[in-house]
Amino acid sequence: MTVFALDSLPHPIVQAPMAGGPSTAALAAAVGEAGGLGMLAAGYRRPAAVAEEITTLRGLTRAPFGINLFAPPALAPDAEALERYAERLTGEAERQAAEVGVPRHDDDGWAEKLAIVAEARVPVVSFTFGCPPAEAVAALHDAGAAVWATVTTPGEAVEAAAAGVDALIAQGVEAGGHRGSFDDGRPGDLGLLALLQLVAAAVELPLVATGGLATGRSIAAVLAAGARAAQLGTVFMRTPEAATSPAQRAALQEDAPTALTRAFTGRTARGIVNRFLAEHAGEAPAAYPDVHHLTAPLRAAARARGDAGALNLWAGQAYPLATEEPAGDLVRRLAAEARDALREAVARAAP
Amino acid sequence: MTVFALDSLPHPIVQAPMAGGPSTAALAAAVGEAGGLGMLAAGYRRPAAVAEEITTLRGLTRAPFGINLFAPPALAPDAEALERYAERLTGEAERQAAEVGVPRHDDDGWAEKLAIVAEARVPVVSFTFGCPPAEAVAALHDAGAAVWATVTTPGEAVEAAAAGVDALIAQGVEAGGHRGSFDDGRPGDLGLLALLQLVAAAVELPLVATGGLATGRSIAAVLAAGARAAQLGTVFMRTPEAATSPAQRAALQEDAPTALTRAFTGRTARGIVNRFLAEHAGEAPAAYPDVHHLTAPLRAAARARGDAGALNLWAGQAYPLATEEPAGDLVRRLAAEARDALREAVARAAP
Repeated sequence: MTVFALDSLPHPIVQAPMAGGPSTAALAAAVGEAGGLGMLAAGYRRPAAVAEEITTLRGLTRAPFGINLFAPPALAPDAEALERYAERLTGEAERQAAEVGVPRHDDDGWAEKLAIVAEARVPVVSFTFGCPPAEAVAALHDAGAAVWATVTTPGEAVEAAAAGVDALIAQGVEAGGHRGSFDDGRPGDLGLLALLQLVAAAVELPLVATGGLATGRSIAAVLAAGARAAQLGTVFMRTPEAATSPAQRAALQEDAPTALTRAFTGRTARGIVNRFLAEHAGEAPAAYPDVHHLTAPLRAAARARGDAGALNLWAGQAYPLATEEPAGDLVRRLAAEARDALREAVARAAP
Repeated sequence: MTVFALDSLPHPIVQAPMAGGPSTAALAAAVGEAGGLGMLAAGYRRPAAVAEEITTLRGLTRAPFGINLFAPPALAPDAEALERYAERLTGEAERQAAEVGVPRHDDDGWAEKLAIVAEARVPVVSFTFGCPPAEAVAALHDAGAAVWATVTTPGEAVEAAAAGVDALIAQGVEAGGHRGSFDDGRPGDLGLLALLQLVAAAVELPLVATGGLATGRSIAAVLAAGARAAQLGTVFMRTPEAATSPAQRAALQEDAPTALTRAFTGRTARGIVNRFLAEHAGEAPAAYPDVHHLTAPLRAAARARGDAGALNLWAGQAYPLATEEPAGDLVRRLAAEARDALREAVARAAP
């Protein structure tokens, strides 16, 4: 069995793993069946649920697929800063008729999930929030997996290459959801095209580009920049296969700006600006996943009440271009548009 | 005489106007002779000097060229905030053995410069810092000019289209130097690829892409994204034709991060992080050009002392990829690399 190679994909489109809601086995299956690469999100889920979802996906498709794991968090954060932030959330707790959560510095079931994806021989295992340790990379290689790391700076790319990964997901600052930066104290702020150029100059690994890609033209752009594929997340959030909440589906049809914030989880992430983000941006410490656990009950209550003002409305900068269509149709349309865009650009650029 | 059309350029490369230093007639001439579009920077200069430089450039080349004007600033800013910032600069003034400058809310000779470029029948007139008024656009059209506006959001693109401009310079957040945002109180933060997609969905005008473009591959990328040309600034700063200061040339060979700041001029701009930026980021009010005049004597003294720690080291996010080579060679090399990258992407994307 050979390791999954990006060039074997019928279409150069990877569906981004969107932990905490939108990702489903149905979405990954639809993308894989259409010729893209579907991804499951292991983050936030119980290890047993991860194993089940892999089995479910394999019942839906024989196409190769991937799964994304959160690298373990760094040292436990400043307890006092966390306490102060918890106090700032008491008003929100009253509004939602809920309690502020108990902060916890867990590792999202790191060792168990690693064992599960190796045991299940998942074709592609990607990481975010840190460099996978070289031993984990080696163990996954032994299990037949291709290993990808998410990077936001050329320095992170060099570190991931040294750990032995097979490809890099270069995440531009345009991306929705969490920044994949290794050190969230200094999250990378490079736009996608700048990042692709700097990473390509630093390492030889194949690149998957992600961040603000919502059209065939933008996929064509990153391919021309040298990436082997484009990873798209937000654009899949309005598909029927995604488990996106109704409040978030509604927000994606507006055009409010997005911003980076640690307010929801303690780790820098991009979401549509709403009341909670505006009120608490700048207050939250760099304390992931502690702050995630602190705000989780408030967000759950807001979701139940349909209060989009207190939800984490993760979205990339190009989110107004997301459309409502079946995921497979979307993959085929975007791939065709990307090819047309490249051919048009070649014709126009001919000397 | 027909108005200058982007498709008439032998190479889809525009040299960004870099006011306040690097831009010279020699640089614009070298770019134009090589088949790109050279640009002069009218900003910060006396009107008579602008007229002279146009004459100088025409003595060097018959190639078409452009010139960039600063749109007039908005209402005068908060005088107290300005006073507070002046007080914060007293330590720096002592260090540089200079005086803090006198703030001034001038319009950079707007009316005189408009008259000069119309009278001189400059082929392309671009604007930054605001939407050119419809009357100015009409007057320039009467003078045979193509009029371009710099935009950072789809909203600004719609406004500029309504003013009658012929093309838009879409400036991503990766760009070095000043953001061209119409309202610096809310500067656009869109990465270049996200911006190109959103602007293309909002208006039909031809687009020139700018921000963090330093390689042929990145030029190929924006052409695939639908832009008609790429505007590059930082990458020209190390050419022998540019009047870039020795301190800045040295800084461009390091790899310190860049950041956005109002500390030097009162308007958001991207520069390499140095001592002054780190000390004063977040302190300066949105007060352009008032703060520019406040810090100008300090920066002049620092430049004379060779103290790069107090200079505005404008640079785009991909600045470490800038090379030292003649500007004409650079244009030809980048254009050839862009064409190769597009052909390679088409071949790889073939179904």
